[in-house]
Amino acid sequence: MKFENPFIATPGPSHIPQFIFDAMNKNIHHRTAEFEEIFRYCVQNTAKFFGANQPSLIISGSGTSIMDAAVANTLSPDDKVIVLEFGKFSERFTKIATEYGCNIIRITSEYGTYPTVDLLATTLKKHPDTKAVFTCHSETSTGVLSPIADYARIISATNALFIVDSISSLSSTVIDQDRHGIDICLGVGHKGFMLPSGLAFVSLSGDKVWEALKKAQLPKFYINFIQESTSQIDGVSAWTPAIQLILGLKKTLDYYSERQINDIFESYQKTANYTHDRLQKLGLISVVQKGFDASPSVLAYYCDHVPKIITSMKEKGIIIANGQGSLHNKIFRIGNMGSVTLEMMTWILDNLEESIKDHR
Amino acid sequence: MKFENPFIATPGPSHIPQFIFDAMNKNIHHRTAEFEEIFRYCVQNTAKFFGANQPSLIISGSGTSIMDAAVANTLSPDDKVIVLEFGKFSERFTKIATEYGCNIIRITSEYGTYPTVDLLATTLKKHPDTKAVFTCHSETSTGVLSPIADYARIISATNALFIVDSISSLSSTVIDQDRHGIDICLGVGHKGFMLPSGLAFVSLSGDKVWEALKKAQLPKFYINFIQESTSQIDGVSAWTPAIQLILGLKKTLDYYSERQINDIFESYQKTANYTHDRLQKLGLISVVQKGFDASPSVLAYYCDHVPKIITSMKEKGIIIANGQGSLHNKIFRIGNMGSVTLEMMTWILDNLEESIKDHR
Repeated sequence: MKFENPFIATPGPSHIPQFIFDAMNKNIHHRTAEFEEIFRYCVQNTAKFFGANQPSLIISGSGTSIMDAAVANTLSPDDKVIVLEFGKFSERFTKIATEYGCNIIRITSEYGTYPTVDLLATTLKKHPDTKAVFTCHSETSTGVLSPIADYARIISATNALFIVDSISSLSSTVIDQDRHGIDICLGVGHKGFMLPSGLAFVSLSGDKVWEALKKAQLPKFYINFIQESTSQIDGVSAWTPAIQLILGLKKTLDYYSERQINDIFESYQKTANYTHDRLQKLGLISVVQKGFDASPSVLAYYCDHVPKIITSMKEKGIIIANGQGSLHNKIFRIGNMGSVTLEMMTWILDNLEESIKDHR
Repeated sequence: MKFENPFIATPGPSHIPQFIFDAMNKNIHHRTAEFEEIFRYCVQNTAKFFGANQPSLIISGSGTSIMDAAVANTLSPDDKVIVLEFGKFSERFTKIATEYGCNIIRITSEYGTYPTVDLLATTLKKHPDTKAVFTCHSETSTGVLSPIADYARIISATNALFIVDSISSLSSTVIDQDRHGIDICLGVGHKGFMLPSGLAFVSLSGDKVWEALKKAQLPKFYINFIQESTSQIDGVSAWTPAIQLILGLKKTLDYYSERQINDIFESYQKTANYTHDRLQKLGLISVVQKGFDASPSVLAYYCDHVPKIITSMKEKGIIIANGQGSLHNKIFRIGNMGSVTLEMMTWILDNLEESIKDHR
């Protein structure tokens, strides 16, 4: 079996299929009716993957650009916030809120786990003046999937906003933002949407978030959620959008639209289950500890000789990722998102098995 | 004569040649030696177009993202700044500095002109506590080219930084940042570099700017000039870069590297001169008033029936731009940047002449 070489099997940037490149290969000006129609289609249809009714916002930037903006657009200096930290990406919210002078309560949890819902509930009770709770859905650094629906149930009973980085879960995992009452969800193009990096998405849900946006005193200019919300619904962004990336996004949405959205999520889950089975049969240990949910899109496993195995895989034409921070060289990470199918994952794992056996 | 249809002849986003799309059509992971080498090549060679010795910073975002960041990275709340305003883009600095709570002195000048150097000198003398002066080089809304070398001479004798939006002049016009002592210049990929929109560049020059960056108290996270400066020189950006746009940038820089940089600037100037001659022979009036310099890259002319002429040009496969703000429907604008040659401009003007005559 042979797939595109090299095949990017990291948990993002994910592999870009040729049909995306082909869709981007077009000159079009953004201040034209033709492009505005494409833009409207994209903001409306991206929303479906968040489980949101109202259109998403499309921003030109990396995932960090909208994590930054989610703080600047909702808060004022000295506001009290809770960050549920359980990996490199959830920790980033603490760094951002620190830069903006917020009063931060960190609830930390060992890598491979997530903070319990009870601990969040107790902390919120102790701090009823909390303005926002930040966390990750799929923690790309550990492969843990946090219980955002349960967190949301607790948070929505308070005055705090719930702001979720769903960057690596978007389009591989059910989010159901509106139903669970998650105020803000964040996503990007270069994970499950299999686009070149450079596009980010913000999904706002419910009235609570709108009140917060209007009250927020922190300075922001480039990414202003209110400003973008009022114009993007008509297919116009405040600043020059990433035109060709949006043409690619249109193609991704068309590609996914041929299936029921729940079938899409189910197929990634099936591939994830298969991957866990095979890796565990090899005697490898998941970074996700027992009793905690694993992200379907990020598969993280402890392994010996990680750098050698990554190099060996690269020689076979498959790029997998190393661990980050304290997990560097201790784990590898594989992405199960975008164009990855069960057939492809089988091929990836056949090669990985060979690489691991070669270095035993 | 026939060129790619449609041909985007606006002052940005400019037309993307097929060889750029081809160069972007590649999967590569950014945390690899191969990509880091490309990134280093890009930061070093982009700098040449700013007339800077030190590498530029590459940011994923629109031009406004780095205009915003230029304020947030250099200033503290209540800092006094001067904005030289003479069009929609220079005015944007006032909006940004207002959002960040700066103390702003606006020096405004009629569209089609720019503030005099004498007025800047007098204002700086009256306000010796000015921390920064902001303006545009090529004002994309009017086609005026401001005398940044003369402004820089005055500003460099004070404690103020000089921060220039050279977004539409980059690679079509001499900037000479280091020689003139311009502290910060800003550029993007989708003007003279003929890339898809989504990439922005920051060029920092001299010691004065470094002292300011260290002192600046305004909050910023996504675009942090100090953080990016320390890592990008080694081919690594703080956040996921816009990988495929950077592959395109490498191609643009290769394309330009086959010629002497001054020959490139001269050829755009020659095309601009030819365009002015032809449009004036048609009896059209330049937005740029007599006695003021015109930008080689943005050609802006008053004209009757602008919407009809734009539509007629579109039917011929050529996209030109309307005016912005108070100049909407009063002027058209043509870009002379990136892949535009004298031969192409001749074809554009042949068609424009026809469209204008049809609507007389």
